[in-house]
Amino acid sequence: MRIEVLPSAGTPVLPYLEDKLVIVIDVLRATSTMVTALANGCQAILPVLTPEEAFERRLEIPGVLLGGERRSMRIEGFDLGNSPFDYAPEKVGGKRVIMTTTNGTRAIRAAAEAKAVWMASFLNLESIVRAIHHLKQRISLEGIVIFCAGTEDRFDLPDTLCAGMLIDALGQDIQLNDLGEAARMIYQISKLNLLETIEQSDHGHRLLELGFEKDVVYCSTANILPIVPALVDGEVIWQMESL
Amino acid sequence: MRIEVLPSAGTPVLPYLEDKLVIVIDVLRATSTMVTALANGCQAILPVLTPEEAFERRLEIPGVLLGGERRSMRIEGFDLGNSPFDYAPEKVGGKRVIMTTTNGTRAIRAAAEAKAVWMASFLNLESIVRAIHHLKQRISLEGIVIFCAGTEDRFDLPDTLCAGMLIDALGQDIQLNDLGEAARMIYQISKLNLLETIEQSDHGHRLLELGFEKDVVYCSTANILPIVPALVDGEVIWQMESL
Repeated sequence: MRIEVLPSAGTPVLPYLEDKLVIVIDVLRATSTMVTALANGCQAILPVLTPEEAFERRLEIPGVLLGGERRSMRIEGFDLGNSPFDYAPEKVGGKRVIMTTTNGTRAIRAAAEAKAVWMASFLNLESIVRAIHHLKQRISLEGIVIFCAGTEDRFDLPDTLCAGMLIDALGQDIQLNDLGEAARMIYQISKLNLLETIEQSDHGHRLLELGFEKDVVYCSTANILPIVPALVDGEVIWQMESL
Repeated sequence: MRIEVLPSAGTPVLPYLEDKLVIVIDVLRATSTMVTALANGCQAILPVLTPEEAFERRLEIPGVLLGGERRSMRIEGFDLGNSPFDYAPEKVGGKRVIMTTTNGTRAIRAAAEAKAVWMASFLNLESIVRAIHHLKQRISLEGIVIFCAGTEDRFDLPDTLCAGMLIDALGQDIQLNDLGEAARMIYQISKLNLLETIEQSDHGHRLLELGFEKDVVYCSTANILPIVPALVDGEVIWQMESL
């Protein structure tokens, strides 16, 4: 199977996605936060591109919460930031959340043409791998595109590491593009010090400076949540049947 | 010293370049070919963006040659392609060449604001390292930006490997952005099988299919040419005094 890794939400040329599974990764922190929110009973996450779009959509949906960030901080007038710890069961249980983040929600929207769009993070990586094996048995899949959300349209080491861990777990019978090959190498050389590598990355370092150390440690923890968030009709929901 | 690696000619956001040294890398094949051309007595290379611009500029410069590629092949009406073997001493000795390639010449033009712009490849890597140490003694340098030309605006493994080799040679006293850290890791894990990694990369594989195996092997050879090509007044020339 062909696996392509793309480096950022700003990737200028998107491949043909229609017969492919797209896996969006934004380790720090959008997809980690979405996985956490769904595990904590959130009904659905609606990714939007701008705070303005979030405020407009709120008018249509009774009881919905607004979540997300700009420059890593909660947006004024929003209920929740982009920290997974904002999305505790008592806050998001049974609720829907409209979410906008600098990179992650853009990447999700850019992938909407694909046959399936799932959100991955270290937290749910093992479930993603299991779900991919199940999906391959059920439908014909032309390939997988791993869409690293990136940071300000730049290559992001935590996202690429997570992509590398996914590729490593999918085994040997795969063809990779250059960034996929690089991701596999980077994971192999860093797998024994994942947290340290993530803390020293540009984005990790910035979050530590802003006081989000707990977030960075949590988002670097592998395989603790059995959730496969999927984009269905414009909403990110937990598809239990894919596990 | 701060070293930033940028992934492709299409990088959407360029950093502030004015007080920096930019090193452009397009291993397959633009910067490898430029280094070779200058080593073979070519007087200067004039990077332009389009074949049309090349034909126009030719009218102003008596005896100039046209070189470059689109889709890896020589452009119709051009004297030379993008293979280093096209730039033999008997063809380019004493001549100037107007050159346009898909990625490399775009990257050079995008870097023109910098304090200095040099072209690197595996062929001249040791000379680039030596020239950087000399330059640091002569002028105050805020940082280095390594500009991987990339392939069709995508991450390119051969360019990133070459960036990693350069970073590795510059020693430990450096701060890297995420892609720089990744480049160093990729080089460390691949340095004992550079040629194999380059041949299996997307661009390497395509050149092999097109019959350019000799080019790929040659461009993967490190430290055989003592040349530091520099962009001066819009022309790429060999600056002997930088060695």
